Parts: sequence; structure tokens; C-alpha cells
Amino acid sequence: MHIYETKTFDLPTLEGISDKSVEEHLGLYSGYVKNFNAMTELLQDLAKDSEKNAHALSELIRRRSFEFGGMRLHEHYFAQFEGGAKEIENDSKLAQALTKQYDSVESVVTQITHVGNMRGPGWSILYYDPQSESFHIGFTGEQHQGHFVTLPIIIALDVWEHAFLLDYGAAGKGKYIDAFFKNLNWSVIEKRFENVKKEA
Amino acid sequence: MHIYETKTFDLPTLEGISDKSVEEHLGLYSGYVKNFNAMTELLQDLAKDSEKNAHALSELIRRRSFEFGGMRLHEHYFAQFEGGAKEIENDSKLAQALTKQYDSVESVVTQITHVGNMRGPGWSILYYDPQSESFHIGFTGEQHQGHFVTLPIIIALDVWEHAFLLDYGAAGKGKYIDAFFKNLNWSVIEKRFENVKKEA
Amino acid sequence: MHIYETKTFDLPTLEGISDKSVEEHLGLYSGYVKNFNAMTELLQDLAKDSEKNAHALSELIRRRSFEFGGMRLHEHYFAQFEGGAKEIENDSKLAQALTKQYDSVESVVTQITHVGNMRGPGWSILYYDPQSESFHIGFTGEQHQGHFVTLPIIIALDVWEHAFLLDYGAAGKGKYIDAFFKNLNWSVIEKRFENVKKEA
Amino acid sequence: MHIYETKTFDLPTLEGISDKSVEEHLGLYSGYVKNFNAMTELLQDLAKDSEKNAHALSELIRRRSFEFGGMRLHEHYFAQFEGGAKEIENDSKLAQALTKQYDSVESVVTQITHVGNMRGPGWSILYYDPQSESFHIGFTGEQHQGHFVTLPIIIALDVWEHAFLLDYGAAGKGKYIDAFFKNLNWSVIEKRFENVKKEA
Repeated sequence: MHIYETKTFDLPTLEGISDKSVEEHLGLYSGYVKNFNAMTELLQDLAKDSEKNAHALSELIRRRSFEFGGMRLHEHYFAQFEGGAKEIENDSKLAQALTKQYDSVESVVTQITHVGNMRGPGWSILYYDPQSESFHIGFTGEQHQGHFVTLPIIIALDVWEHAFLLDYGAAGKGKYIDAFFKNLNWSVIEKRFENVKKEA
Repeated sequence: MHIYETKTFDLPTLEGISDKSVEEHLGLYSGYVKNFNAMTELLQDLAKDSEKNAHALSELIRRRSFEFGGMRLHEHYFAQFEGGAKEIENDSKLAQALTKQYDSVESVVTQITHVGNMRGPGWSILYYDPQSESFHIGFTGEQHQGHFVTLPIIIALDVWEHAFLLDYGAAGKGKYIDAFFKNLNWSVIEKRFENVKKEA
Repeated sequence: MHIYETKTFDLPTLEGISDKSVEEHLGLYSGYVKNFNAMTELLQDLAKDSEKNAHALSELIRRRSFEFGGMRLHEHYFAQFEGGAKEIENDSKLAQALTKQYDSVESVVTQITHVGNMRGPGWSILYYDPQSESFHIGFTGEQHQGHFVTLPIIIALDVWEHAFLLDYGAAGKGKYIDAFFKNLNWSVIEKRFENVKKEA
Repeated sequence: MHIYETKTFDLPTLEGISDKSVEEHLGLYSGYVKNFNAMTELLQDLAKDSEKNAHALSELIRRRSFEFGGMRLHEHYFAQFEGGAKEIENDSKLAQALTKQYDSVESVVTQITHVGNMRGPGWSILYYDPQSESFHIGFTGEQHQGHFVTLPIIIALDVWEHAFLLDYGAAGKGKYIDAFFKNLNWSVIEKRFENVKKEA
């Protein structure tokens, strides 16, 4: 089985998201990678007596995507800050596609924000469906519940409590989301969208 | 918002999965398309008074991926039977990649079968991660819970009760899974894998 | 650890729910009891090397309530038919309490029916909260998701596909729910409520 | 519909759980009460056009138990600290029952701790099943997922990130759980068990 490695991110100092918060957040990310690999290994071990361990194997299978999601989503998350905050190009393919579906980029940011402010830990995610050439905004509980299956991710906004509690307190999700968008490097987002369009 | 349309599938008579069962199953599929579109529409309607309807909007957002998954997964499912049963080509890229990771194609079929036999309704799914060039087998509860986020699907095996109960009774999931693999057109599966490899 | 035993139910012939369907349903119920006990046993076994098996132990813990719910909910379900269909007594404590909160017994039956017709497998449940002296109608996904924590159950309506597919087909949930209420022995339900009131 | 009110708790200064953390935690608790009532009200409003709003009604129904759980579980949680830390009485009915099933009280505390250290936000809960006269330890995701249906709660240990992040950082769950048990008033727990036994 493939062993995944923890990636490193070239992160600038963020505005409104403290270094300490980022450092702890990166620690959680590496925990997902470590635990995904550990579950993979344990699965192989328990499979040696698959009849006796049938229930344990089932439940590990059921949960592995939690760790995978924690790994992959955080990789999307941190990459969005690399290179520093940068506004969207008004005439980029992404800006045009978003404007076509949502009237304006501001409008889609508002909707992602609303979804991020939903109750409970999770992610507010902008997916793109190449088949229908349309975007979908979804809310993911934990790391693996509620995804739009197979769709590539354009923007991934983490709204677990660990993302904001240290900087803004238990009721501070709204302020954190504002900070998230201030630090976003939209050129990373634009490239994601272009890569998806190329494949489609 | 994009309105999705129900696809039609050119299905042969299946061995061990009755026409009546397929017909009812296709009816459920079209229900997902219809309900996804209806939720999209209702979202837009309730958004006119987004403050008053905040909770309703949240919960519709939380659930839309259920209908999307029901739509997209069934499209993967039925397409796998189009053209009639066909064995895997031993020297296809898919056969080679599966053999490399799982020792043999038989072995991966056994594992997908085991996961399909897990308790509860859902799907046993073979995903491919182009980034790590490895496959993952996962179990999805309902249509949207537990997915390997963003990963394309190579094989989608429906193990909701509606897939097998009519033909094999409440305890007949195992027999149905055997029938599923007997009817699989592996050339469809091979093409899926090749398309994913091309994009990567 | 306590080993649970499969209960037997003194069931009359039901109207609109076939003997074959009931027989298969009882088979599923005994599966929950068997699997709950098996998970309990496996947990104890894996706990001998709790460090190595930590992930497996976690996932078994996470899932045991699924089997427990499948066991306990079906015990509520089948008991409701014992003694044969019997209408609610207009002046029973239950009838009075339901009428007070929902205007009429018909109205609460309609609401339980609506909730039962929600999409996806699960249960439509009438709970009673002795603390606030009020009823709540909820929808439970699978056997363990979405419960009103700690609340005793007054009516449990199974809406998994296995409850209706054999008799009414994949789209026949509505007809099955009507049959469910036709066969209900309300004196069982009244006694449940009286027992809960006594304790409170 | 019954309107729930936010309870107040007579809390001592806790050891290892800061006043600020408790204050924010109480704020979250009152949010659950407020949101449960708001969802109840919105349900009644949308029910006026139940056909048009069918999907919204369904999703509100599906989610109400999240808010109810957040309310009821936190009421169990804070009440456990009222009156200040107090050890378990060795000859109390609870101590005897726990010792009978788990060999010692220390052993059950260790198991609740292990379950609390499972990955993801939720609760580690000690339930009691009066019917089988046995305890079950479970892990609840969010506030409403994975409960042992109908069972009364003896101990409720909150392991959402908001419970520990402010005092111990994102990786500090273990230290928080130790602090939780140091502050527990076991006489509250003993009384809960005695009340459940009386009812059974």
C-alpha cells in the first residue's frame, strides 16, 4: 500500500490568523497523514485473520476516508495561502465562470461564508462539476461526510473549531472566515480551476 | 443554476438481476435527479428571505450532496453494464495497475466484495488517487457519507437493499454481488481508468 | 459483558405486510443481536493489545451503537403489533397528551407519516421528553444517527427498504406506512407512555 | 410546541479548566437551546405550505436532534461539576455496579478516557441499560450521531475542541480529560444511577 508523506507549505505570515494557530493546525494535518498510514497498516495486519477480525476490518474501512479527507482537505487549505494574499483577476477564466453562475465573485464569497457559518465543525467547499460546467457549494461534516462525490475542489474553507478558536474564541467563526478570505491567494485558486477545465 | 437531466442507459438483459429490479432501480435514480433539482430551486426561493430561513437553507445545503451522490453514483453504476458483460483484458493498463497493487484482479474483486458485504446500506467503491498513483477501496453510507474526497471512481457497487432485495431477499446481498461482477463490462471500467490516467 | 438474547414476538397475521416480509425482517433483527454480541466479544479480544489495535478498537466503539439500535428499535417495532390491531382509547393519557400538543391524534399520525416518507433509510420516531412533558418526532438515519438522546420511544416506525420493498416495491413506502398504522396495537403504545409518565 | 429555557449551573472554580473556557462553553450551550427553539418555530412556519417546503421541513426534522443533543448533553455535562469535586463512595450502588462489570472504578474511568481520546469531535458517554442491567461506553459524533438509543446517561464527557483548545491547545485533549475527572462530583453521578435504578 502507498505510504503518504506529510507535505510542507511555504506559508507567509497571515493577517488575523496567528502563527501559533497555524502551527497547531499543521500539527493536526500531519496527524491525519500519520493516522491514515497507520490504519492502512493495521488493516493489512488484521486481514491475516479476516474471519475473526471481520467487524474490525469493516469499521477501519468505514473510517479510513475520514483520515484521507483530513489529509487531502488540509493540503488544499494550506496551499491557498502560499505566495501570499492576491486578488482575483477580473478577466481570469475562474472570475468569468463564477460571475456567469453567481452574478459576481463577491456573491460566491458571500455564499461560501454563509455555508461556513453553518453550525457544527466541517468545511465550506466550492466544488466544480466539469460534466455540467457548474459550481456547487457544499458543507462537509467532519472530513468525509457530505462530499459531492468525485468533484474537484476549487476552494476549501476549514471551519472546525481548531481553525479559529485560539484566535477568536468559541463564537469567533465569522471573524476567522473574514480573515481567511483576506489571506487567500486567488492565483492558486485560478490555477486549480484551469487545471480542472483542461482535463474536462 | 444548472438543471440536471436524467440519463438513459442502453442496458442488456442482466444475469441474476431481474428486469423488474433494474426498472425500479432506474426509477430511484431518476428520483435523485428530480430531487436534486427541486432542492436547488427551493434553495433559491428560500434565499429571498435568508435571515428568516437561515436554518432551512443550512439543512438543504447539508443534504444536497445526498441527492447529487445518488445521481452521480447511479450513473456510474448503470454505465458499467452497458454493452454487456466483458472480461478484463489481462494486459490493459487497469489490469496491470490492479495487479501491481493487489497482486491480482481476483484479489481486488474479493476485497470489493468484502466491503460490499459490510453491514448497512451504501456503496462499495474502488477509487483511484492520481496523485499517489494508488487505488483505495471505500464504503459509502447513504450516497454522500464517507467518500474519498475528490477521487474519481473506477468501480461503483451499489449495496442498498433496493439493489438486491427483490431478487434475493433481505439476506441475499452476497448472491447479488456475485451477479454484479458477472454482468460487469470491464472495458467500461478500463476506459474510466485510462481517462483518469490521461488527466493526471 | 452482558450477552443479549433474541426476543420472540407473538405476532398476528398482519394486514398489508406479508408473512414472508415479517419473517425476513425478524431475521434481520436477530442479525443485530448476533452482531452486537460479536462486536462486544471482539472488543474484549483486541483490547489485550490495546496499543497496537487502538484504531480498530475506536472504530468498533464508534459502530456498536448501530447494532444496539438495530436490536432495540426492532424490539420496539415488533412489540407494537403484538395482540393485534387496536385503536387508541380517546380518553387514555396518551390520547389526551397527544391531543394537547398536536390538536388531534390524526394530526400526529400524519406528521409521523410525513417524517417516515423522508428520503433515505431509517426510522420515524415519536419520542417523549418527561422533563419538558412534550413529544418530539424525529428521523433516525441507519439505526443510531440522529436520535434524541436519552428520550424514551413511544412509536417506532421502520422505514428501511427491507420494511416495504418486498410487499410494495422500491416506491411503495407510502402504502407500507398506511399498513403499519392499520396494524398498530395502540394499547401497547398507551402502556409505554404510562410507564414513562410513572417514572418521570 | 414547548419552548426550552437555558438552565443555570452553580459552578465552582475548576482545576485545569479555566473560567474563560467555561464561560465560552456555557455560551455555546445557550446557543443550542436558542437554535433548537428557533428550528421548532421555523418548522411550524414552513409547515403552512408543507408541499412547497417539503424538502426544507425534512432537513429541519433531520437536524433538530443535533440541537436537542447539544442542549441535553451540556446539561448533563455542567451538572457534573456542581457542588465541587467529590470522590466516588466505595460502597455506593454505582461503585458496586461498575466494579461488578469492569472490575474496578479505575478501569471504567480508563475506558471512558480511551473513548474520549478517539479522533474527531464528540462525546465519550457512559450509558446504563436498565433492561440488561449493564453499562455501555459509546462515542457520539457531533451531538446526535451514534447514541445508544433511549439509554439514560450516567457520565457525559465532552471532547469537542471547544472543551479543551483554549486551555491545552489543539493536541491537548488528554490533559483536559484528566482535568475533567479531577473536577467530577461523583455524588451527582451516583444520584443519576440511583434514579435510573429506581425507575427500572
